[in-house]
Amino acid sequence: MSTGFFDGIDTIRYEGPQSTSELAYRHYDPDEMVMGKRMEDHLRFAVAWWHSFAWEGGDPFGGQTFVRPWHPQDDMGRTKMKADVAFEMFGILGQPFYCWHDADIRPEMGNYADNLAGLEEITDYMGQKQEATGTRLLWGTANLFSHRRFMSGAATNPDPEVFAFAAATVKGCIDATHKLGGQNYVLWGGREGYETLLNTDLGREADNMARFLSMVVDYKHKIGFEGTILVEPKPQEPSKHQYDYDVATCIGFLRKYGLQDDIKLNIEQGHAILAGHSFEHELALAATEGMLGSIDMNRNDYQSGWDTDQFPNNVPEVALAYYQVLKMGGFTTGGTNFDAKLRRQSLDPVDLVAAHVGGMDICARGLKAAAAMLEDGGLEQALAERYAGWDTPGAQAMLQSDLGAIQRRVLEEGINPEPRSGRQERLENWVNRFV
Amino acid sequence: MSTGFFDGIDTIRYEGPQSTSELAYRHYDPDEMVMGKRMEDHLRFAVAWWHSFAWEGGDPFGGQTFVRPWHPQDDMGRTKMKADVAFEMFGILGQPFYCWHDADIRPEMGNYADNLAGLEEITDYMGQKQEATGTRLLWGTANLFSHRRFMSGAATNPDPEVFAFAAATVKGCIDATHKLGGQNYVLWGGREGYETLLNTDLGREADNMARFLSMVVDYKHKIGFEGTILVEPKPQEPSKHQYDYDVATCIGFLRKYGLQDDIKLNIEQGHAILAGHSFEHELALAATEGMLGSIDMNRNDYQSGWDTDQFPNNVPEVALAYYQVLKMGGFTTGGTNFDAKLRRQSLDPVDLVAAHVGGMDICARGLKAAAAMLEDGGLEQALAERYAGWDTPGAQAMLQSDLGAIQRRVLEEGINPEPRSGRQERLENWVNRFV
Amino acid sequence: MSTGFFDGIDTIRYEGPQSTSELAYRHYDPDEMVMGKRMEDHLRFAVAWWHSFAWEGGDPFGGQTFVRPWHPQDDMGRTKMKADVAFEMFGILGQPFYCWHDADIRPEMGNYADNLAGLEEITDYMGQKQEATGTRLLWGTANLFSHRRFMSGAATNPDPEVFAFAAATVKGCIDATHKLGGQNYVLWGGREGYETLLNTDLGREADNMARFLSMVVDYKHKIGFEGTILVEPKPQEPSKHQYDYDVATCIGFLRKYGLQDDIKLNIEQGHAILAGHSFEHELALAATEGMLGSIDMNRNDYQSGWDTDQFPNNVPEVALAYYQVLKMGGFTTGGTNFDAKLRRQSLDPVDLVAAHVGGMDICARGLKAAAAMLEDGGLEQALAERYAGWDTPGAQAMLQSDLGAIQRRVLEEGINPEPRSGRQERLENWVNRFV
Amino acid sequence: MSTGFFDGIDTIRYEGPQSTSELAYRHYDPDEMVMGKRMEDHLRFAVAWWHSFAWEGGDPFGGQTFVRPWHPQDDMGRTKMKADVAFEMFGILGQPFYCWHDADIRPEMGNYADNLAGLEEITDYMGQKQEATGTRLLWGTANLFSHRRFMSGAATNPDPEVFAFAAATVKGCIDATHKLGGQNYVLWGGREGYETLLNTDLGREADNMARFLSMVVDYKHKIGFEGTILVEPKPQEPSKHQYDYDVATCIGFLRKYGLQDDIKLNIEQGHAILAGHSFEHELALAATEGMLGSIDMNRNDYQSGWDTDQFPNNVPEVALAYYQVLKMGGFTTGGTNFDAKLRRQSLDPVDLVAAHVGGMDICARGLKAAAAMLEDGGLEQALAERYAGWDTPGAQAMLQSDLGAIQRRVLEEGINPEPRSGRQERLENWVNRFV
Repeated sequence: MSTGFFDGIDTIRYEGPQSTSELAYRHYDPDEMVMGKRMEDHLRFAVAWWHSFAWEGGDPFGGQTFVRPWHPQDDMGRTKMKADVAFEMFGILGQPFYCWHDADIRPEMGNYADNLAGLEEITDYMGQKQEATGTRLLWGTANLFSHRRFMSGAATNPDPEVFAFAAATVKGCIDATHKLGGQNYVLWGGREGYETLLNTDLGREADNMARFLSMVVDYKHKIGFEGTILVEPKPQEPSKHQYDYDVATCIGFLRKYGLQDDIKLNIEQGHAILAGHSFEHELALAATEGMLGSIDMNRNDYQSGWDTDQFPNNVPEVALAYYQVLKMGGFTTGGTNFDAKLRRQSLDPVDLVAAHVGGMDICARGLKAAAAMLEDGGLEQALAERYAGWDTPGAQAMLQSDLGAIQRRVLEEGINPEPRSGRQERLENWVNRFV
Repeated sequence: MSTGFFDGIDTIRYEGPQSTSELAYRHYDPDEMVMGKRMEDHLRFAVAWWHSFAWEGGDPFGGQTFVRPWHPQDDMGRTKMKADVAFEMFGILGQPFYCWHDADIRPEMGNYADNLAGLEEITDYMGQKQEATGTRLLWGTANLFSHRRFMSGAATNPDPEVFAFAAATVKGCIDATHKLGGQNYVLWGGREGYETLLNTDLGREADNMARFLSMVVDYKHKIGFEGTILVEPKPQEPSKHQYDYDVATCIGFLRKYGLQDDIKLNIEQGHAILAGHSFEHELALAATEGMLGSIDMNRNDYQSGWDTDQFPNNVPEVALAYYQVLKMGGFTTGGTNFDAKLRRQSLDPVDLVAAHVGGMDICARGLKAAAAMLEDGGLEQALAERYAGWDTPGAQAMLQSDLGAIQRRVLEEGINPEPRSGRQERLENWVNRFV
Repeated sequence: MSTGFFDGIDTIRYEGPQSTSELAYRHYDPDEMVMGKRMEDHLRFAVAWWHSFAWEGGDPFGGQTFVRPWHPQDDMGRTKMKADVAFEMFGILGQPFYCWHDADIRPEMGNYADNLAGLEEITDYMGQKQEATGTRLLWGTANLFSHRRFMSGAATNPDPEVFAFAAATVKGCIDATHKLGGQNYVLWGGREGYETLLNTDLGREADNMARFLSMVVDYKHKIGFEGTILVEPKPQEPSKHQYDYDVATCIGFLRKYGLQDDIKLNIEQGHAILAGHSFEHELALAATEGMLGSIDMNRNDYQSGWDTDQFPNNVPEVALAYYQVLKMGGFTTGGTNFDAKLRRQSLDPVDLVAAHVGGMDICARGLKAAAAMLEDGGLEQALAERYAGWDTPGAQAMLQSDLGAIQRRVLEEGINPEPRSGRQERLENWVNRFV
Repeated sequence: MSTGFFDGIDTIRYEGPQSTSELAYRHYDPDEMVMGKRMEDHLRFAVAWWHSFAWEGGDPFGGQTFVRPWHPQDDMGRTKMKADVAFEMFGILGQPFYCWHDADIRPEMGNYADNLAGLEEITDYMGQKQEATGTRLLWGTANLFSHRRFMSGAATNPDPEVFAFAAATVKGCIDATHKLGGQNYVLWGGREGYETLLNTDLGREADNMARFLSMVVDYKHKIGFEGTILVEPKPQEPSKHQYDYDVATCIGFLRKYGLQDDIKLNIEQGHAILAGHSFEHELALAATEGMLGSIDMNRNDYQSGWDTDQFPNNVPEVALAYYQVLKMGGFTTGGTNFDAKLRRQSLDPVDLVAAHVGGMDICARGLKAAAAMLEDGGLEQALAERYAGWDTPGAQAMLQSDLGAIQRRVLEEGINPEPRSGRQERLENWVNRFV
């Protein structure tokens, strides 16, 4: 029943911080209670099919490095072998969820009908495996960026037939996600953007993209899919400019088209960095607007200008991310996906397992630190004190007045405010007590 | 009557491309007709008071390099001398407009009442000069970022008294702008942002900033100021993160708070770069949304991560910017401001004049190239052809249908679109025929 | 005899600036004399085999977009068809040179002996074509980065057998370059760097890389190859850090190991940008050190953090590059290679030809502007004046003295220097008279 | 005897990790033994005079925020008050060292003689305080970048009189450093670079800079100063390009001019980031070349493109830095300087003290983690195994052979290396056991 791919690798167990085993959880203990909830139910870890099983190790300057028995994924047999291996790894890791793009799980057949048939066959197969193992689907998504038919966009393609092909593809993927009990459905528009403004009609493309999203929302309601629709911000790469640039841009777009109540965001650390933001900025902004849905907890290298999709390895940074998540009350349908790929030199099966174990431990440490910070309450208290002036009746009345009235008051009262310390270093020290 | 500062520098004249004079316009001929309008009326050049007359040459690692007789600007006498020199330079250049921040034109007196009195006195003085010379005010603005009272923000300060001080200051500046016949009023929020999320309440600050802008709009209407209210996007510096990050962020913000019909954008090349965008991207996006108000035509160095505010010097880039401006029908109340500073080693009066002459010539070349591109029409035609499929009844009907209907059509008709060339290099070559 | 691939595309002719033809040179006139030399002999254009004929249009998020009859290049027949098409395009463009990597021109056979045999066969074939057409080889190079055997480096691989395989490969490529009369041999170390310091021995890898280069130099002399050995700086991508980071790093490395007289640099605009430098900086530095060998005149997008390898399209920037080349006396064995790829949406044969035509015209305009600047002499004169003080006997004597003597003189003479204007904007204006 | 500035702040004590006091060391215990040496003797902390006492809180968009009784520092009285406060803070923190620029500790008098006299007077005063308190001088340096006389460079100025003024200034500063028992002398060339290549003679400036450094080395030997001469890499800011760009550039420069045995490097995290490198890269490279002298342990914000000079707050990053330091055997004359400034909103004396306490604790945690990693030995063992092939006689013989011999062996033995995993994630996991 085992595929043999992970021979010699046992199920990963929690052994505590002192363990020196390479393949043990030192910090991730699914049943440990954190702020009244099991750690597993907080973190809601998901493994991504694409990077872990489909990607062959290529980069812009080199080809395949991983030699897997299920490569290339151009027939249904190897596709099922890949699913066998994937669920075997889920069993080893014990994480509760996984995620897929359609193009990772079925062969590309070159036309819509055959692609759809392949998708249905493989998702039936995966559904049986879900049932047998208990691993659940965090989200599904359609890959509308890899095939050459999408080279100029999917929903934003100048050719309406590509829009049609993309819409039909998404319908198939939502159906499959619904069938598998997926908790969310994600759209990432890698080619929804442009290479040059010289050949691009920005206004028309935005309208078409919005119409596409509206159809997705309508369809979700029509079939009774109760998961969350998520869009994923990224500023560029592969496109020179992508329309879902960052959280602020996505929210502005959704609000313009009246979609802000039906769609939330899936936010990735690496994409935040590429857009010039810290991860916690993107999370905090989305949470403030009530639109933080789920996260992709893979980091980019700070010195690289492209999407490196590495496993997280910095606890202080991860802690600040979960601080935002916990502050908004934790995930509902969302979770912590590792949209992370092994470095292409990490050839061995044990590399794949160890990378996930390490990433999950980093997140567990971050979550516990974030919970400790919230339970201590120091940061929230400092924040309340800093803004206390705004809670006075006078300040609230001013907000309802006008420039003339304010000027009169400033002149009459001789208002001349003295600045107060922002205490940044002291707050940073406070954080460092917990991470 | 001359201040003597520009001794030896005559009024700049148009001498044509073959001129070898350092102080002549080779390309900027105010009366030349471009697409049916005088070049001066297209470009609407403005000189910025701040960089040209107030800035002393300091940077984070060094102090004053410029030794001007009107420095430091801490009494009204030197402030008036500065105005004399400024208007003298306007006469030399012959550009139609100028711009100011309150803190550039009056001394800082340490309290609101005296600052206001100083502003009124100096703007009366400048009003006389406007009348005498015909130079007009493109926009005024309040500096709500330099004084320590604003170190933690103005409209977004945790202290409501700072909000009050800022609101009263803006009222004074709008009054002065109105008095001087200003065509726009600008708000740039250099401290409206944060240094660390640890001490920042994002939601509250956004609400307060929106309320502040609403008061500005209300006041404009109350006093009958017919100029345009403009906000200026910038992603960071001085703050780690600024709320008016880029065009998309600003538009999303304005729309959230219902301000999108009352406020437009003042867009700067250097700020676009800092936000990870090309200048033409920011212009095209704002124009598409009907929110392109005015531009600051100063560039940043591509290898520097801070705001270098240099005079423009690259015709192909400037041409693409004016292409967006002309495509939307040209400026209405807006214009081309040089929010540009001399390099701090450029000590001499002739450096200051020559920098403006060079910048104006670059813009004139860019404008003429943009007009030639539009008159040729090749780009617009290529665009129309590329999207022609969307103009068919079938495509429009599809947009009104749903995912199910589209899927049926894809299956029934076997839709399998073949990609078509995006022709980027050919379009770039086309542009290079004109620049 | 024609392959049919370029059907309908005639040989490109010089038609002058007023031509509206898409497929004509408007500025590149090979026989036009520029500073006493034919334009063709100045620019020495080369077409790169890799991007133009081997690359299939893939990027990290998508696969093949170009559908060429010679793809995939996995047998000798298709490889020869590719050569037929390449030389046909050389005939259409009329550029004098081309360049190759071994992996672009032969199939990958999976072992050294067969790869070598393939290389010999195809280069014999290409040699006949060179003879028939007059197109010459600017440089050859070995691709030591794409195959998985090189994933951890070639000369810097932890496995000495990879060093051996790489050394043998380079020997074959130098032999082939020599056979074809190549004017240079290039080494670009895409995997000579690291992904993580955690698994890297910096000192050992540097020593091995230097030893490898020494062997190359020795072999060149042994076989009487009179071309120049060039290394090509790039800071990163594919590696997180590459050892040939930039010009300064390469020169320092070569000098450390005594290789500075035997190796020069091949400098690329896009790589300069990635390293945080302007292209003219890299060229000026290399020229100052006598190590500027050849250039790759392909630009990166300023808003993208990866190697976009686009055709040049900005005359002012290109002019400053050729200014450095002309100032050092022009190319000797080097030339202007387009290591540029079409955008992956530019599917048609005409896109490929037009991109080269546009790039060559941009370079021709840049060269002529650079020559005009040099002939005018204004920049050089301003430079001489600025440093004139250093040409005095007193200044030269000071350089030979010591801190004590200098202090005495400063004290005795009360030396208190007054700064003088750097005149940057005036010099920039001066440049803009020519570009 | 107290200045009163720090009233209410007691001497900081080590209280252990569980302490909740804001002003206690939780990790820095000077006497704790780490790898056989006292923690204090490993870390060798220094406070920087400039940021902590001289800087007034200005940035490019705003002026003074800190209101200190010793500002502005334009007379000797306030300068001594500043020294009193500084040494009082050293007593509170208990760190063993401090650092200064001449311009931080004496008033600027506008001419060399008076500046020198001021320097002598204040350093005599500081010498008494050193004696009284035991705090020692890690390094002194001359500020050759702030005053307008240096706007176009110091050693690289086009005006030889500025070179003279700079040389005399450095002599005075070395004398003062020697007098105070300084352990190093630092040169950072903030204006040794250019704003534009158009007015710059790269070759001449490099030669002059090298000659300047040679004079410094000669003078050090002449007066018997036994400290280390250090140069500090930084890529840009204030200059567009600085000659001491990064570690590789500095080493190449020093080697070119034969200075590599007399000068080492002072490496700053923030400067590494600006140059596109990780801090550990810069440290590892310098250590490999035997040129790592001292460190400035202040970080830059990853999303800001300028020098933010913040106190360190990320233990995993700091641990990797000290790993490099410990691996090379630890500091000799160097140490850990905080060239860090408070955020300009951190107005209170307690902010200044707390920032140092937090930074020192972060470093102590990092040092202990680094020591634990070294004592465990896992990383070094993995490294040795990875490169073991190079230790064989065959590999060493190959390095002494030539391309022809290697090719023969590859052909004869059919060498076809199979890649081995680089194990990056497993090594990162290993590190995370310790940080």
